[in-house]
Amino acid sequence: MSGESADVYFGRAATILEREGLDPVVTMEVFARRDAVLCGIDEAKNLLGHVLHDCDPAETRVEALDDGDVIGPKEVVLRIEARYRSFGLYETAILGMLAQSTGWATAARECVETAAPQPVISFGARHVHPDITDVLDYAAIVGGCVGASTPAGARLAGLNPTGTMPHSLVLIFGDTVEAALAFDRNMDPDVPRIVLVDTFKDEAEETLRVAHALGDRLYGIRLDTPAERGRVTADLVKEIRARLDIEGFGHVRIVVSGGLNPERIGYFKDQGAPVDSYAVGSYISGAAPIDFTGDIKAIDGRPIAKRGRIPGRTESARLKPIDLGNWPEG
Amino acid sequence: MSGESADVYFGRAATILEREGLDPVVTMEVFARRDAVLCGIDEAKNLLGHVLHDCDPAETRVEALDDGDVIGPKEVVLRIEARYRSFGLYETAILGMLAQSTGWATAARECVETAAPQPVISFGARHVHPDITDVLDYAAIVGGCVGASTPAGARLAGLNPTGTMPHSLVLIFGDTVEAALAFDRNMDPDVPRIVLVDTFKDEAEETLRVAHALGDRLYGIRLDTPAERGRVTADLVKEIRARLDIEGFGHVRIVVSGGLNPERIGYFKDQGAPVDSYAVGSYISGAAPIDFTGDIKAIDGRPIAKRGRIPGRTESARLKPIDLGNWPEG
Amino acid sequence: MSGESADVYFGRAATILEREGLDPVVTMEVFARRDAVLCGIDEAKNLLGHVLHDCDPAETRVEALDDGDVIGPKEVVLRIEARYRSFGLYETAILGMLAQSTGWATAARECVETAAPQPVISFGARHVHPDITDVLDYAAIVGGCVGASTPAGARLAGLNPTGTMPHSLVLIFGDTVEAALAFDRNMDPDVPRIVLVDTFKDEAEETLRVAHALGDRLYGIRLDTPAERGRVTADLVKEIRARLDIEGFGHVRIVVSGGLNPERIGYFKDQGAPVDSYAVGSYISGAAPIDFTGDIKAIDGRPIAKRGRIPGRTESARLKPIDLGNWPEG
Amino acid sequence: MSGESADVYFGRAATILEREGLDPVVTMEVFARRDAVLCGIDEAKNLLGHVLHDCDPAETRVEALDDGDVIGPKEVVLRIEARYRSFGLYETAILGMLAQSTGWATAARECVETAAPQPVISFGARHVHPDITDVLDYAAIVGGCVGASTPAGARLAGLNPTGTMPHSLVLIFGDTVEAALAFDRNMDPDVPRIVLVDTFKDEAEETLRVAHALGDRLYGIRLDTPAERGRVTADLVKEIRARLDIEGFGHVRIVVSGGLNPERIGYFKDQGAPVDSYAVGSYISGAAPIDFTGDIKAIDGRPIAKRGRIPGRTESARLKPIDLGNWPEG
Amino acid sequence: MSGESADVYFGRAATILEREGLDPVVTMEVFARRDAVLCGIDEAKNLLGHVLHDCDPAETRVEALDDGDVIGPKEVVLRIEARYRSFGLYETAILGMLAQSTGWATAARECVETAAPQPVISFGARHVHPDITDVLDYAAIVGGCVGASTPAGARLAGLNPTGTMPHSLVLIFGDTVEAALAFDRNMDPDVPRIVLVDTFKDEAEETLRVAHALGDRLYGIRLDTPAERGRVTADLVKEIRARLDIEGFGHVRIVVSGGLNPERIGYFKDQGAPVDSYAVGSYISGAAPIDFTGDIKAIDGRPIAKRGRIPGRTESARLKPIDLGNWPEG
Amino acid sequence: MSGESADVYFGRAATILEREGLDPVVTMEVFARRDAVLCGIDEAKNLLGHVLHDCDPAETRVEALDDGDVIGPKEVVLRIEARYRSFGLYETAILGMLAQSTGWATAARECVETAAPQPVISFGARHVHPDITDVLDYAAIVGGCVGASTPAGARLAGLNPTGTMPHSLVLIFGDTVEAALAFDRNMDPDVPRIVLVDTFKDEAEETLRVAHALGDRLYGIRLDTPAERGRVTADLVKEIRARLDIEGFGHVRIVVSGGLNPERIGYFKDQGAPVDSYAVGSYISGAAPIDFTGDIKAIDGRPIAKRGRIPGRTESARLKPIDLGNWPEG
Repeated sequence: MSGESADVYFGRAATILEREGLDPVVTMEVFARRDAVLCGIDEAKNLLGHVLHDCDPAETRVEALDDGDVIGPKEVVLRIEARYRSFGLYETAILGMLAQSTGWATAARECVETAAPQPVISFGARHVHPDITDVLDYAAIVGGCVGASTPAGARLAGLNPTGTMPHSLVLIFGDTVEAALAFDRNMDPDVPRIVLVDTFKDEAEETLRVAHALGDRLYGIRLDTPAERGRVTADLVKEIRARLDIEGFGHVRIVVSGGLNPERIGYFKDQGAPVDSYAVGSYISGAAPIDFTGDIKAIDGRPIAKRGRIPGRTESARLKPIDLGNWPEG
Repeated sequence: MSGESADVYFGRAATILEREGLDPVVTMEVFARRDAVLCGIDEAKNLLGHVLHDCDPAETRVEALDDGDVIGPKEVVLRIEARYRSFGLYETAILGMLAQSTGWATAARECVETAAPQPVISFGARHVHPDITDVLDYAAIVGGCVGASTPAGARLAGLNPTGTMPHSLVLIFGDTVEAALAFDRNMDPDVPRIVLVDTFKDEAEETLRVAHALGDRLYGIRLDTPAERGRVTADLVKEIRARLDIEGFGHVRIVVSGGLNPERIGYFKDQGAPVDSYAVGSYISGAAPIDFTGDIKAIDGRPIAKRGRIPGRTESARLKPIDLGNWPEG
Repeated sequence: MSGESADVYFGRAATILEREGLDPVVTMEVFARRDAVLCGIDEAKNLLGHVLHDCDPAETRVEALDDGDVIGPKEVVLRIEARYRSFGLYETAILGMLAQSTGWATAARECVETAAPQPVISFGARHVHPDITDVLDYAAIVGGCVGASTPAGARLAGLNPTGTMPHSLVLIFGDTVEAALAFDRNMDPDVPRIVLVDTFKDEAEETLRVAHALGDRLYGIRLDTPAERGRVTADLVKEIRARLDIEGFGHVRIVVSGGLNPERIGYFKDQGAPVDSYAVGSYISGAAPIDFTGDIKAIDGRPIAKRGRIPGRTESARLKPIDLGNWPEG
Repeated sequence: MSGESADVYFGRAATILEREGLDPVVTMEVFARRDAVLCGIDEAKNLLGHVLHDCDPAETRVEALDDGDVIGPKEVVLRIEARYRSFGLYETAILGMLAQSTGWATAARECVETAAPQPVISFGARHVHPDITDVLDYAAIVGGCVGASTPAGARLAGLNPTGTMPHSLVLIFGDTVEAALAFDRNMDPDVPRIVLVDTFKDEAEETLRVAHALGDRLYGIRLDTPAERGRVTADLVKEIRARLDIEGFGHVRIVVSGGLNPERIGYFKDQGAPVDSYAVGSYISGAAPIDFTGDIKAIDGRPIAKRGRIPGRTESARLKPIDLGNWPEG
Repeated sequence: MSGESADVYFGRAATILEREGLDPVVTMEVFARRDAVLCGIDEAKNLLGHVLHDCDPAETRVEALDDGDVIGPKEVVLRIEARYRSFGLYETAILGMLAQSTGWATAARECVETAAPQPVISFGARHVHPDITDVLDYAAIVGGCVGASTPAGARLAGLNPTGTMPHSLVLIFGDTVEAALAFDRNMDPDVPRIVLVDTFKDEAEETLRVAHALGDRLYGIRLDTPAERGRVTADLVKEIRARLDIEGFGHVRIVVSGGLNPERIGYFKDQGAPVDSYAVGSYISGAAPIDFTGDIKAIDGRPIAKRGRIPGRTESARLKPIDLGNWPEG
Repeated sequence: MSGESADVYFGRAATILEREGLDPVVTMEVFARRDAVLCGIDEAKNLLGHVLHDCDPAETRVEALDDGDVIGPKEVVLRIEARYRSFGLYETAILGMLAQSTGWATAARECVETAAPQPVISFGARHVHPDITDVLDYAAIVGGCVGASTPAGARLAGLNPTGTMPHSLVLIFGDTVEAALAFDRNMDPDVPRIVLVDTFKDEAEETLRVAHALGDRLYGIRLDTPAERGRVTADLVKEIRARLDIEGFGHVRIVVSGGLNPERIGYFKDQGAPVDSYAVGSYISGAAPIDFTGDIKAIDGRPIAKRGRIPGRTESARLKPIDLGNWPEG
């Protein structure tokens, strides 16, 4: 972790302070301006564990909240008291970790709360750079999702990855039932058989064909009707549930995906559509980062602040001291 | 690059196809659903160069547009014709690269077009995860920004990083003029002296103090008045320009930052505020990814498509074939 | 035609005037308050032909515009000069004929103008009382529709009725292709074979099945996807057109129905959907009547008017005298 | 009742089924998609009584709700179980009866509920075709109106017709008082004397002139101020009530008409205007039909449905079996 | 003119400066923040003529625009260069004169521009304190009104007052025609006979009664229908014009009053109502004052300004020097 | 008090009635059409005391409500029973007093209710003509303001004037601290030291400089940040409160001014900004007059009214008789 990803002016500040022989103990407080579900703080603590590793424990102190905490506007989520040159260069990185993960976790929480008690799965890997899909999936799970779609993200959260099958598999087999049978032949028994039923035929017709082919081994079907065909509607879910029940497949679950967000999930709930779980993509993965700010509030113990901020330490009953010796990889 | 960041169902599809002995040549087309400034395609080509490295050139073909191209709704930006198992696993990664970078480049272009002829600088590193700040800065520059705030991002785009000084430097020196003089003492002569003037005093008063202290060596000042103090207004810029000119500092440039977006930039333009450059943060870095879709349109030469899509190759006069032998790191 | 359908106060007025021995020659003018496509005037003239049959031609005069004329606010569309007791009782009937037919014709015209050059068919019989379906269909055709769905209405307008097949026929045959073949076997050759393709299967799949079964004899297919399945979308029309063309059925026309109105027709036009004709139901048949008013403007040649109106005959260059001897059934 | 008013495709279906020798017992359910006050069902039962008259009672069953019932979205209001060819041709007619009458009754109910406890009279005959004024007036009374303006409609509902006098009577007499005296001279004593007071003079002045002329025999006055004179206002009603009371005519009732709808009636209520009854025209008569749909849900006892609908009979505790032998004119 | 009406802090400032022996020459500039029609400046110049009467002409200078000038946002309308203590106390009074008169003149101009070429009369005296009715009427005339309703205001503007008769006169005579005849008997021949026709009877009926009674001596009638009777409508004006013309009174003019504003005047224009003049009340008299600000821009010749303003004299090609010797009452 | 400020038609009416020898006893009632805080009634009573001074007490009666009463729509606030010619000419003056003062008092009350329990001061003298600043300040105080800015207005309400210091004083001293010290040196001890802190420097910096200079003698500071600098924000108030408290100046009060209205005051309250008092200008002084109407309701004891109004005295339990002998200056 070098300063390559930091705003260049932090590098310049480090140079200037070094040349001028200045390195005060500063108190920096980090906060956001809105309600949110905090995430990224574990990663930030881990980074601080590295960079503060060789600092004098007597003058070095870190306090923080935890991933998953619901935070309020201007609430301090992280307070660092240390020699400025030991960590100043990493302000950009810390704020970035918090901003993006908190944005994702907060959006996930909105979906989860709307969908409850039905569960939500995060499917957004395709909207973010591959270098951070694991971070995204972890944040979605912190926000309350019960599963995520990538192996790396799921492992980070201690869960198994979730997923059904891609349209490409169905297209290559040329028939949904053929693809479903191949899936069933080749996958471990503990992988639930969830079959995508919108590739070739009407969803209701395809659902019944698949149900008859897999019988009790069919765990569920996924509806992902494209926008060109009017998206998944509450009535479609009701109809498929009814047709499954009429033909004796009451055990088959219905997973819905395709452009879901809290408003759309609420529509399914309001209409009483019997959805068993929701797979959410871009509402979570495309959520705007939530801006975090790092403010210096004291220098060598003296309260100070830039214009617009209040000097001195902010009272907080929630911040917990971080044991430097216990940092996971310090 | 393993499948760790891929949606898990692509991994399962690969397993099933392998066990079933299927590996057709498929034609996959990638498109977005809205107007955008394409970005991430160079990175995607690079990835494909790696994964298709050992394929039979006779049955492998890649066509694509370029970073910076303005694309239309449903326009094909990338077409891959190859054995499915050679690249299917990487669909998630490719779509993610395109989605996030295109989102950023498109947002940057909006700011750049509104601000022209004044230049725009991307300052958004603090809102994204440090693992992708270089990708962000590169996309901002593809979108038309003249500079970016991180060394890594600037290097990726072949530019020098841009920046002024952090509030923390001013706070540590306890006075803007002291900090400015230290900056001037310690920085290479080719680094422009741009001083942040909103830390302690009224911006107009501080600007004149700094101008008198640095004289001709002062390149510009940056206004970043916080929301708590009403943000930077067009009248503030006009007043500072007038006060600088009255006191003989007509050469000092004014950089504005703080919550800028096309609407806010347009406000400065409409009011005739003499801003010399705009530093934009979260409007670019927090832009939602632009969703890309990858569709199989033919299998072993036979047109096919899932419901909602039209089978067969899409006509395109703009797609350019990629020479597999020339791929940068293939 | 008795006074049974008249507002009762007209019957009372007739009684009072008769008992008081009053029967002046009055000039009554009929107008609406908005732009509209006039309809019902032929039926009104016909009624007047009957009721004025025995009046003294020297003091009886009727002037009117024609069905299909575009009229302006407060424009006089009918002027009757006759003994009051000869026609006063029929004011309610005349206004009702004009109000309802003009409402329908005006709504039809809106659809026709939006859809042009593609034709519009009126399908609204199911929303109005069976006693007036012929009047509705006639008005729709006056408004510009090229066909209507009932035999009576079509005959009134001198056209053949238009139609495809009901869902019940498909349901009874249990398969769209079976129903289509039965239709083809049993209908006269001059009845165009237009097959409804949304009953059992995905519309695109069903369209191709029907096209292969009927070949050149298939005139068109009708898309009527229910709201529960997201209605007909522009993309569905494009896809079906493309799939038909790919398989060599370029001659098969696409008829769209289901909740169409000018806004929805405009959506198909704006999206460039290759619709061949539009079947409109409740937008035309459910159009609100356009209120007409009958004002007495002179009595025995003396200008008079109630408060709010201007006494005397209104100038009009468009009104044409009606030859009492020529009335169709006078 | 022939098939002339049916959609032509029902006629074609009948022909095809006859030639193919098909005539299954089908279960058809009829429903609307919104809350409404059901009307037209008696007329529909009557029609079914005719067309099912010669069917085998063992396989023929009709269940229905009643005129005036408040129905919910998708609630079944009519279920027919019979040979398809015995009634299929009449689907258009049945749906049309329900659609138009239910639209009118529902609009009437809205006015009645807003006006309560003051009564509402339906005055809309002039906005509909004379062939259906009786149907309109019957529906308005089913919706809660206490009277209707045509003799036929009132008789259908078992009431006397309601009405005052037309403007033409006043214009022919040349003075409101003269017209009122003639009305009083010539009408049966049981016809209430309600005088229209807006023809020539200010309403307040004319009201007092009429009250002095008719004294105790005056039942009420009707205010119908035209839009050109600002319509009837709440203040006008209050003023006329006060001026009547001041001069000792506390028994004279005030009827208001002219562009009334629930919003306008609510305005009079909110302002505390002492209106004694409301005469509503185009809000009821111009109400859009409420679309009804007839779905086949079973064929020869086997559940079936078109896409978008759920196969099989819908549970309903409210539907009542219709005794075929008791049908009024069967 | 003492300091009694000044904000008290100006009085305190005067005391302090006197005790401290300070009395610099200051340059004060006065401006508004929006487009407006300037008014009150003559009164302000007059005040300054008094208070600067004994100042040293060598160091005293006043420049100003004129009443009736259209001014732009932040345009300087008045610049005073003088010893501060000679005029500082009067800043409140000067700003108040400008604010209120400019508000009125600007509102009057809006009405006048909408009504043109028909004239506008100001009738707003009843909405402002009697001490300033003359100031109001003068401002209305500066804004373009052709007349005002008070003798004092009209004299200030060099016009005769305009007016018709009050409702009280008509009520005391008990009949509009009686009141009109008394008006005609007792007024000088050069006072135009304009009769208010809405007191007792319908406006159209009363207009014709008055016209027959006064014949050629009737100059016009005024319509002022109260809100309780639906206000004056465009149709009422058209009807009265038509009824006057039919009966040979084409010379009688129609004046409209009652809640007029530019939107309502525009309604009459758009509807083509033949109004001859508009009498406007509260839109002009109730117009909000337009805020003026007085800024010190130089002290003893040295540019200075408070934060938010630009130091030094503002360029202006329009300001005209005021000759102190020529001030009307200096 | 002559008729110079009356609408000219009242003067004409007086002339006509005199020449015709008419002078009935009339009952006039005065009311507004909306909820309001009544003001101006004391001044109106005073005027009536003068003009009715010589009337016969047996036929002269005045009833009224009081300044500060909350009145409802159409509630009678003043009833005059007297010979018409004794007071008719003053109708314009009376209505004008009520309209303008009631408009101001009502606007003041809105601010006061929003700000409670913090007090409001009226600062609007600069927006009204100097002849009525005392009337404005009195009305503001009737509306609930605790102080007003002019000596005359404050005296009228029996309070001391309120105020701080003008920007001009600070500009002439060239430094806020110098101006504050001069103020402190020269003002009576009972004048609270409230210092304007936005003239030259950042408000927080200046506040602390002034607090250190005046110490315990500093009563408060006034924040009036101009729009060009983003106006006063809730965060600025919080920050200044915090910085004052940190440095031991907990006793210093914070007064806020600058474009305040109920919406803006509510913003400070909602944000929890520790404002000690609000100084409101144009929201009060620029409030539109509230239109009052004077209606004749009886003549010589006989109920009468113009069209649109109800004849006769209006019941009122609140009106209080005015003792003519007790009128302050009768």
